[in-house]
Amino acid sequence: MQRNPVGKLLLFGATGDLAQRMLLPSLYGLHADKLLPDGLTITGTARSEHDDDSFREFARKALDEFVPKDRCDADTIDTFVARLQYQPLDATDTDHYGALAKKVGDVSGGLAIFLSTAPSLFEQVIRGLEGAGLAGETVRIGLEKPLGYDLASSREINDTVATAFPEERIFRIDHYLGKETVQNIMALRFGNSFFEPVWNARGIDNVQITVSETVGLEDRASYYDGAGALRDMVANHILQLVALIAMEPPARYDVAEIRDEKAKVFRSLRQLKPEEVPQNSVIGQYLGGAINGEIVKGYDEELGKDSNTETFVALKAHVDNWRWQGVPFYLRTGKRMPTRRSEIAIQFKPVPHSMFAGRGGLLQPNMLIIRLQPEEYIQLLVMAKEPGLDREGIRLREVPLNLSLDAEFAGKRRRIAYERLLLDLIEGDQTLFVRRDEVEAQWTWIDAIREGWKANDMKPKHYAAGTWGPAASIALTERDGVSWQDD
Amino acid sequence: MQRNPVGKLLLFGATGDLAQRMLLPSLYGLHADKLLPDGLTITGTARSEHDDDSFREFARKALDEFVPKDRCDADTIDTFVARLQYQPLDATDTDHYGALAKKVGDVSGGLAIFLSTAPSLFEQVIRGLEGAGLAGETVRIGLEKPLGYDLASSREINDTVATAFPEERIFRIDHYLGKETVQNIMALRFGNSFFEPVWNARGIDNVQITVSETVGLEDRASYYDGAGALRDMVANHILQLVALIAMEPPARYDVAEIRDEKAKVFRSLRQLKPEEVPQNSVIGQYLGGAINGEIVKGYDEELGKDSNTETFVALKAHVDNWRWQGVPFYLRTGKRMPTRRSEIAIQFKPVPHSMFAGRGGLLQPNMLIIRLQPEEYIQLLVMAKEPGLDREGIRLREVPLNLSLDAEFAGKRRRIAYERLLLDLIEGDQTLFVRRDEVEAQWTWIDAIREGWKANDMKPKHYAAGTWGPAASIALTERDGVSWQDD
Repeated sequence: MQRNPVGKLLLFGATGDLAQRMLLPSLYGLHADKLLPDGLTITGTARSEHDDDSFREFARKALDEFVPKDRCDADTIDTFVARLQYQPLDATDTDHYGALAKKVGDVSGGLAIFLSTAPSLFEQVIRGLEGAGLAGETVRIGLEKPLGYDLASSREINDTVATAFPEERIFRIDHYLGKETVQNIMALRFGNSFFEPVWNARGIDNVQITVSETVGLEDRASYYDGAGALRDMVANHILQLVALIAMEPPARYDVAEIRDEKAKVFRSLRQLKPEEVPQNSVIGQYLGGAINGEIVKGYDEELGKDSNTETFVALKAHVDNWRWQGVPFYLRTGKRMPTRRSEIAIQFKPVPHSMFAGRGGLLQPNMLIIRLQPEEYIQLLVMAKEPGLDREGIRLREVPLNLSLDAEFAGKRRRIAYERLLLDLIEGDQTLFVRRDEVEAQWTWIDAIREGWKANDMKPKHYAAGTWGPAASIALTERDGVSWQDD
Repeated sequence: MQRNPVGKLLLFGATGDLAQRMLLPSLYGLHADKLLPDGLTITGTARSEHDDDSFREFARKALDEFVPKDRCDADTIDTFVARLQYQPLDATDTDHYGALAKKVGDVSGGLAIFLSTAPSLFEQVIRGLEGAGLAGETVRIGLEKPLGYDLASSREINDTVATAFPEERIFRIDHYLGKETVQNIMALRFGNSFFEPVWNARGIDNVQITVSETVGLEDRASYYDGAGALRDMVANHILQLVALIAMEPPARYDVAEIRDEKAKVFRSLRQLKPEEVPQNSVIGQYLGGAINGEIVKGYDEELGKDSNTETFVALKAHVDNWRWQGVPFYLRTGKRMPTRRSEIAIQFKPVPHSMFAGRGGLLQPNMLIIRLQPEEYIQLLVMAKEPGLDREGIRLREVPLNLSLDAEFAGKRRRIAYERLLLDLIEGDQTLFVRRDEVEAQWTWIDAIREGWKANDMKPKHYAAGTWGPAASIALTERDGVSWQDD
């Protein structure tokens, strides 16, 4: 990829939660490893009143809290915060953008904007940036989700952004794509001859993707209650994982080739008719319960009002093309689950015939586990001989072939996904960002599901906090003779 | 399998090296784990003069030396040696067999004989056993190698044994078949759906089997100089490994089904014409050198005379059937190699196209390593993403997916291969023993190679002790663009 680093970075939401936990620590990490362009200045902006000094102090506190101690070095922190400056902004006030542009200064050396804002403000922000000369040829813009809440609103936002920025300067962020293990999916599939011959409907029985959280609403009530699990997790992260698992081999590791193949997967997702939705989706909402011995409240109680928002969703999806015909993709995500886990489990077909029948023990089908969170590892579950002098021939049991990425690459720091993505934004590599047609194909599929819920008046089923969702989620797979991979 | 334990065991060579190191410790292991039939008595016989007491003393010393201390328990040793008795025997003296039979006593409850003897004595021993009533319907016989030195002598031995014992009571021992990891080959291949689709000429580029020793002649000079590496290692152990890797799936885990499939592989081995042998085989003999910093003598010097016996052989073999057409099986074994290792390396085809070309790093083809010695493990080498913020996309490197059998099955003792085989001999399960047609098909193939050496007047090339054999062995694979898997 031709890399084209900018000289300046403009960070919207610079005093927000994401900035404190992820963006500032990520930029610090890149700075400490000397990966940022030499003279790069970083302008923070947000509604909060700060001057440069108080913002630098704010940044120091964020680093102190969210960067591991062994990575904190006084000199390095000093040189990092020296890159920072700050300009307060009321995004709804057109006049403020002039001051912001003045603070940023000359952008002829390139400017990368990181924008996270409420969907309702997109129009104003984009107009403001354009009016202040912050949308010219040398400017690229990174967009943090949510980019709309359905196809129509997503189109509206994309249309708005497109009036000021052409697609090749728009970087839509899905932070899952910044994870090492997610990038490893392509490496595994297309760097090895071993997997591809069975990576299809002949070899694979089903694919399961689980993104479970133990947390409840936290402080995201207003956003989350309007969104729900389907739009919060499936519409982006989980569908991106589906695309990486399901896509055809791109001819080259190239931004257009890869995004073309992903987009093809999204367009191949079987569109559910309203009457098919109840059979292929389960929604839930957590009641009170206990997680790791701690009593937690139910969703309504946490929210402070009754709500029909789903905090859990399980789906049975299909990719309608030659490779995947008949292979269900079971997707589920939820809050207040027993454990925090992001995992892809690829279950291979059972052996066509067991020569060990009656004596070898039950043969478990092979499984490839790609664990993204909380640990990162890859595990191939195979049947091997149980050692010992069994009288009846060979007794088999399931054992894991392990690839621990943490262990294998010991000594290398595990990076925050945003480090990868911010570096790519700064240097102009769109490969790990989401293209407009991908987003819109995702929403098309998601909207059909939500329409089905509405048409069938589906309401979330309750589940106790600390469980894997409503019983109907178990039934969704068991009906097909498949069990969720629960450890 | 229907198991039919005998009440008595008769051990030829009971004071020899194999008995001390392997047979007595193995029987002790089975005894300690209460796997031997309750009243089983063990009669030792050999040329040495011993009475029961002195043989029991001899056995105690062997256990003391060759059984791990934590497995030695005074009471258990007492009850074990109480099973033992001894009868001296001059195998060439027909009169001696009567006394032996008298010592063994009533064999109506079943007798298992473990026979290891020089090929030249087979005729006399079998006649002696038969004459003394030790070859009746209730008697089975285990035969230790060498069973001949070519097809003709092997046939002669088999014919001799067949006059007294039908095939279903003959147990030809190849101790490699008693190893856990060797039995695991069948478990892996036929207990998993994952491997079989690529387990053929479309998926596999080549198979390599290495059985290397660091030792030289030790005290086996007279046998070894008459045999050589080809007959000592390839004609049995290595060809058995070839069969397990190459065979078609048996319908059932059943002695006839499995041995039928193995025999088919031996019959499918491409027979070399004399003129093809020089291109497809390399022989070597070690000179002096250094191994692990220790100076060692050359073969001739160790032997005390000039010899043309090969202490190293490398072969390029083919299995001529649909599954394996065009897949070379590279086989090598030698003494005074850099490390002791028994290993099967299955190299898969390279990826048909690398999407990472120019940026991902060189893609190594996938490799499945089955290590039998000195450790037992299975390792799948795959390409995975090198973690980090590489600017040029994805950089790949080879990493192992590990199945450590020692670790996985921790707590279970790793058994001596002879424990499995002696138990099966005592209980009458022939699955892990070699059938006559297997042995003869092996010799047919081996003889053609030796005839080729003779026809072309091939002499062993010298190699320095502590190296992987003559340079010609490297050339044997490199000519095909393949490198020996040397760690």
